[in-house]
Amino acid sequence: MSMVSPTIVIVGGVAGGASAATRARRMNEQAEIVLFEKDEYVSFANCGLPYHIGEEIPDRNDLLVATPEFLAQRFRIDVRVKQEVLSIDRDRKVVTVRKAGGSDETYEQSYDKLILAPGASPVVPPLEGVDAANVLTLRNLNDTDRIKAIVDRDATKRALVVGAGFIGLEMVEQLVQRKIATTLVELQSQVLPLLDPEMAKPIEQELLRHDVTVCTGAGLDRIIADEHGVAFAAVLDDGTRIETDLVILGIGVRPNVSLAKEAGLEIGASGGIATNDSMQTSDDDIYAVGDAAEYPYAPGDTRMRIALAGPANRAGRLAGEHAATGQCAKMSAVMGTSIVRVFGISAAMTGLTSGLATRMKREARSVTIVSKHHAGYFPGAEMMTLKLLYASEDGTILGAQIVGGEGVDKRVDVIATAMHFEGTVCDLAGVDLAYAPPFGSAKDPVHLAAFVAGNQLDGIENLTDADSNLEGIQVVDVRTAAEVQKASLKGVDNVIHIPVDELREHLDELDRSRETIVSCAVGARGHIASRILKQNGFDVSNLSGGATVRDRVFD
Amino acid sequence: MSMVSPTIVIVGGVAGGASAATRARRMNEQAEIVLFEKDEYVSFANCGLPYHIGEEIPDRNDLLVATPEFLAQRFRIDVRVKQEVLSIDRDRKVVTVRKAGGSDETYEQSYDKLILAPGASPVVPPLEGVDAANVLTLRNLNDTDRIKAIVDRDATKRALVVGAGFIGLEMVEQLVQRKIATTLVELQSQVLPLLDPEMAKPIEQELLRHDVTVCTGAGLDRIIADEHGVAFAAVLDDGTRIETDLVILGIGVRPNVSLAKEAGLEIGASGGIATNDSMQTSDDDIYAVGDAAEYPYAPGDTRMRIALAGPANRAGRLAGEHAATGQCAKMSAVMGTSIVRVFGISAAMTGLTSGLATRMKREARSVTIVSKHHAGYFPGAEMMTLKLLYASEDGTILGAQIVGGEGVDKRVDVIATAMHFEGTVCDLAGVDLAYAPPFGSAKDPVHLAAFVAGNQLDGIENLTDADSNLEGIQVVDVRTAAEVQKASLKGVDNVIHIPVDELREHLDELDRSRETIVSCAVGARGHIASRILKQNGFDVSNLSGGATVRDRVFD
Repeated sequence: MSMVSPTIVIVGGVAGGASAATRARRMNEQAEIVLFEKDEYVSFANCGLPYHIGEEIPDRNDLLVATPEFLAQRFRIDVRVKQEVLSIDRDRKVVTVRKAGGSDETYEQSYDKLILAPGASPVVPPLEGVDAANVLTLRNLNDTDRIKAIVDRDATKRALVVGAGFIGLEMVEQLVQRKIATTLVELQSQVLPLLDPEMAKPIEQELLRHDVTVCTGAGLDRIIADEHGVAFAAVLDDGTRIETDLVILGIGVRPNVSLAKEAGLEIGASGGIATNDSMQTSDDDIYAVGDAAEYPYAPGDTRMRIALAGPANRAGRLAGEHAATGQCAKMSAVMGTSIVRVFGISAAMTGLTSGLATRMKREARSVTIVSKHHAGYFPGAEMMTLKLLYASEDGTILGAQIVGGEGVDKRVDVIATAMHFEGTVCDLAGVDLAYAPPFGSAKDPVHLAAFVAGNQLDGIENLTDADSNLEGIQVVDVRTAAEVQKASLKGVDNVIHIPVDELREHLDELDRSRETIVSCAVGARGHIASRILKQNGFDVSNLSGGATVRDRVFD
Repeated sequence: MSMVSPTIVIVGGVAGGASAATRARRMNEQAEIVLFEKDEYVSFANCGLPYHIGEEIPDRNDLLVATPEFLAQRFRIDVRVKQEVLSIDRDRKVVTVRKAGGSDETYEQSYDKLILAPGASPVVPPLEGVDAANVLTLRNLNDTDRIKAIVDRDATKRALVVGAGFIGLEMVEQLVQRKIATTLVELQSQVLPLLDPEMAKPIEQELLRHDVTVCTGAGLDRIIADEHGVAFAAVLDDGTRIETDLVILGIGVRPNVSLAKEAGLEIGASGGIATNDSMQTSDDDIYAVGDAAEYPYAPGDTRMRIALAGPANRAGRLAGEHAATGQCAKMSAVMGTSIVRVFGISAAMTGLTSGLATRMKREARSVTIVSKHHAGYFPGAEMMTLKLLYASEDGTILGAQIVGGEGVDKRVDVIATAMHFEGTVCDLAGVDLAYAPPFGSAKDPVHLAAFVAGNQLDGIENLTDADSNLEGIQVVDVRTAAEVQKASLKGVDNVIHIPVDELREHLDELDRSRETIVSCAVGARGHIASRILKQNGFDVSNLSGGATVRDRVFD
């Protein structure tokens, strides 16, 4: 064994494995690099699979990012597909591999450095009928081919997607684009359960606008198949029966940690393979990256499993470099920054949600703004709702959720970048973003959210969550008469209506001794009203996001 | 004079003045707030003016962001339009104001706090014919109306735009959309002189694709008008004569600092009114914001005039708060982050360019990458070129320029955000950005640029600027035969051609004793080739941006 020309063995060709292999080669021409992949394909576009089924990516070959031949030719990587690594002998530094071809024959491969990128497997619940031929999960190209073959059939008219996470939503969108009547079932009480309910609501509304049947708060009880083993209906736990020609299960993934576990590597609290900042496991010569590994997780100051392609690629690159040279930069903290497109709107998140902060017992405050993605006077401005979470004690940004039309991706990336530096809402208020009318506003939605958060942090303005119980509180709706008539504030009676521009003249009609909440359409006029009332002796708070966001809570 | 109810006087209703006024009101209901504006309009959308001329913003009313009536009604601001502040008596704390109505009558207005937002005025060179009726600058609504009236005439077929900065380029685009045959003249040797030449080149190419006549390196010598004072031709300093029905001068602005200067306020080295981090001038009771003020400027660690709407709005907000309460957050450093759309492409910048770094005597290194704006396998991916500048000593990001199709704005904002925190290229390589195929890549262009910069910083890869003289150097083009045949590497003879995938077998055909440069299409394969050669004993460097960027230099 020579560390000038080490043998680097990589287990898993997707989820960071290919990144590790190619970086290792670039760092070390002398290394022997062997990449095992138990399936047929390495380095395919796993995030693109739904879009091939929906024919938005028409050519299947486009999904093959790097073939074994390419990796061999350009990077001199010994790619061995259809070969599964069965076990690791850490003392002898060898892995046992099952040969290709379906036999049980095995052989040993020695390593100096071993990189585990085993990924994760879709969860299939142990329910009646789940083994039917047209009940499928979507994880790799074979799954894609199977699902697409069914969708391509003329007889396929209806589909059921179970699970309203990222993959479930992407599949629903693509099935609808293929003119399949689609039902979406989700056990939680909302779609996209990673998001706070009011932030996920616009996604549900967009699904309904596209004639998707959405069943939230409903679990799959069983699937009914015919005598040929073909499913034709599903029954939910509330008894609802759904006729269908195809069932796609998108209810989550389970990290493939058994190989690591059996080798005695430490498994972290989040259930992933424990790693340090160089992506080394509890064995210095073994690395773990991708969906099965833990990463440093910023907002919780902990380590977490994050099944996303971005961190997998970056971690793979670092592990490959470290395996080849003995050093690499520190793996940066991840925030779970992610995004999904659902027809005309997008939902993105980074870091903590209110729900997650509560579960992690983290003191957090939030603000929600509704704003246009570029200058309102420029045609084509689309609305976005941005919820920003920050630490109550010092304003450190903890997370953001954004839902809307154009420009959602930009804002989540800006906030995630600020979070990389442990920035505060005050930092965010001062970031110098590019502005021209087609691209943004002089006061970007990111700035607006930061301004509101700063006001809240500095005690300039109190905010009340959109879903708060307003009973017994003096509620003042400061919108115009026309707006109020069109849609009254939900979930509250006895609202006093005074348009903001007339508020100063009508202060005496309000009771200074009562706790007061002001509300407008999105919170901007409410802010002005709250400042007027506060300076006039009221104990006042502004309803975060105004009637727009409250409508989503009480829909 | 009471500081509970101070009198806050604001000079200038655009460029931060309106932001200052409304923030002051929100912070202090008791203050008397007077806003002077010498023109007719306050708080109009100055960045939107070209788009109204081009009818992309059809309704002129959309340009009126906040009318005097609105500011009076909602914010109780005493807006006095068509009244010019002529002088400041700092001892008596009064300003002298010329009354509206064209008379020379003046009156005094006292202040406790004075906020100057006088903006800037377009430069009009003292050339023959510039006073012709159809030779115009674009700064306010009256200018807009005048230009649009001319464009609207059927007889207007040709236009000449002088100055290829932001406003010049926006005007050219909009004139072409109005089917006006347009000539663009720029004194510098390139369009968008703020950018490094190779980064501005795609903008020039886009202009040519839209049949704009582009004359760079040419100055305006004189304008020829008929006996009615209407210009019909312009003559450049090289003698070229251009027939035209309209001339728009977009050659820059001059800050309106005379009022401040005459009052004895300090003027900074950049020619703007000197300020501290609360936007106070050398007189604690007087603030300055907008195009006439200096801001903290990050990449140079200095103070600079930055005539952009974003900083003006943020500075106005802070000044208004400080004037009303005696405190505010620190004004964040600005980077000159800016963007312009020119037909189908956009160019953005933040911080330093190579040219600016040289002029500021700042040690900087740069990398240039060419990449798709989202996953290449997803349809509609558009190319962008990203040039990243960083400090040679520690990798601190100093600036970026980006030119391309979709997604340019997002990347410049991410980099500007990292710069806010004085981030390094290593930070940038680790930012956790949102990825789904319609929005980005697992390795975003921002990451790719940071990876390359990190390689350069760590000595893993040497890079050679695209415009370097390659004479006498062993140049290896590692593209495929087909690519080389289609377009050979410009500005160099005797290129050796070895495709990257065959390089390892042909090392002996190269001379290890010679300085060697590798090049491919954009730099990615060159990176691999440079690693192969370096590890085989070559003194090798990769041509930054490959043949694609070099083509722009030698076009």
